[in-house]
Amino acid sequence: MIVREVGPRDGLQSERPVPPTDRARLVTALAAAGCRRIEAVSFVSEKMVPAMAGAAEVLSHLDPATMGAGACRITALVPNVRGAEAALAAGVDELTATIAASPVYNERNVHRTIEESISEIGRVCELANHGGVPVDVVISCAFGSPYEGDIGAAVVAALVERVRQKGAGAVTLADTTGMATPRVLDDVLVATGIDVGLHLHETRGTGLLNAYAAMLSGVCRFDTAVGGLGGSPFADGAGGNLATEDFVAVLDDLGVATGIVLDRLLEASSLARELVGHDLASRVATAGPRTRLSSAAGSAS
Amino acid sequence: MIVREVGPRDGLQSERPVPPTDRARLVTALAAAGCRRIEAVSFVSEKMVPAMAGAAEVLSHLDPATMGAGACRITALVPNVRGAEAALAAGVDELTATIAASPVYNERNVHRTIEESISEIGRVCELANHGGVPVDVVISCAFGSPYEGDIGAAVVAALVERVRQKGAGAVTLADTTGMATPRVLDDVLVATGIDVGLHLHETRGTGLLNAYAAMLSGVCRFDTAVGGLGGSPFADGAGGNLATEDFVAVLDDLGVATGIVLDRLLEASSLARELVGHDLASRVATAGPRTRLSSAAGSAS
Repeated sequence: MIVREVGPRDGLQSERPVPPTDRARLVTALAAAGCRRIEAVSFVSEKMVPAMAGAAEVLSHLDPATMGAGACRITALVPNVRGAEAALAAGVDELTATIAASPVYNERNVHRTIEESISEIGRVCELANHGGVPVDVVISCAFGSPYEGDIGAAVVAALVERVRQKGAGAVTLADTTGMATPRVLDDVLVATGIDVGLHLHETRGTGLLNAYAAMLSGVCRFDTAVGGLGGSPFADGAGGNLATEDFVAVLDDLGVATGIVLDRLLEASSLARELVGHDLASRVATAGPRTRLSSAAGSAS
Repeated sequence: MIVREVGPRDGLQSERPVPPTDRARLVTALAAAGCRRIEAVSFVSEKMVPAMAGAAEVLSHLDPATMGAGACRITALVPNVRGAEAALAAGVDELTATIAASPVYNERNVHRTIEESISEIGRVCELANHGGVPVDVVISCAFGSPYEGDIGAAVVAALVERVRQKGAGAVTLADTTGMATPRVLDDVLVATGIDVGLHLHETRGTGLLNAYAAMLSGVCRFDTAVGGLGGSPFADGAGGNLATEDFVAVLDDLGVATGIVLDRLLEASSLARELVGHDLASRVATAGPRTRLSSAAGSAS
């Protein structure tokens, strides 16, 4: 199972800014826990998203030796060609670029029509692919939009096809505001096929459930965020990402390999908690893994 | 699908005491939302569990007319024969009695050995069945214990069989500290059969996932608590119950009937929030159902 950790980017973008050196520490801790793919930064306007300022600086603090000498692939989110140029210059392994399946959300999020976003994504893919760097296009609101409601599986599948034609090496469907259910997921996956990544949120408590249902359908790429950090600054009640700890705990129990060592992940999770300065949404981060017995074990009266 | 609402009992027992008249208002609101089974009270020692004081008074405030004229069955938890006598005198429709699959948890929770609990349950069943009232025996820690770790499916199945022999009309398996996973659930259900209720917790964020997985296996009785209220006062980090709102939202989406009307349930949920005086764990209570569009819909610039 491929679990791409998006906490340092998607998770931290809606938090009070964490300094680049600390963000690099978090990325390093996640790599040390066995995360093989990490969305570490985004090359967006520092004015628009202050918490993401200093992307190149974050990357400069990552030590290739401790990062697993290439075993961990670093991803950067880019909003446009200018961001892609900066990310490629910084030497990332993968780019993510977003477009929404919801026209209204797309307009609000990136101030572009869907067609304008597709064109920009085409230019980003051309540039990145020329440099041998793959682009994963993340389609927001793929399972519903708070503005239009249901989007429709055919619309999502058509968009997947269009961004692939534009050069996307991978496509990830994002449940930006937690509207996915096993039924909606099934509808969409039948239309798109299972060669997609899923980026799920816990807005309505269905993130883990949807991941499990999708896994049973054959999907094997998921975005998760340490601590369940995250939430869209552009949509009310977007809720946190599926927590890496919660997903890995279930996968471990099922015997599904991720490369991630839960105990070490919980160390990275503690660091994340310290950096953001508040409790994390992840239940496993709070309760510990099911295999961790009470310290009072055996001492009952 | 049978959803038994346990918020007024299991949910409120670990909260600051809510007056009996207000607890009756909550039960009435839940019945009005379509809940057909409600664990409304427990006849336990008021000294041990102050929040559950005044059980008979709660029941006396329920108006049979607004309670659906018998369509809603009222359950009372009883810890022993004395509690059962009081509950039967108050005219409840069903009793629940608990025993833990974990000897240490049982000792801490009710200060009895497993054998002592089985004997007491036998006496409760005899008394209740004589009066034509069924007893549902809830087996705590059925999917693991924070003291002993895994309990083992064979041990749970043997306990299910023993309490049935003692007169239990139904058995419910409780994941008291959120240690169930789809794998453990499957193990246990293979051993016990699917004619059991499930009482799931969100301690590790797996409540909804486990309910879904169990439903796919054929289980059709679930305990849930409005707002995701609850948590065991006898086990650290026991976490809240599976939230009724979150489960019903998923069941609605799947087209599985419960009799519960989500919008009205959310009204009961608001009342629960008001009564306990803090935010609820239920994600749907906070985010609203997926079908509720943004108030800004259509007004995007």
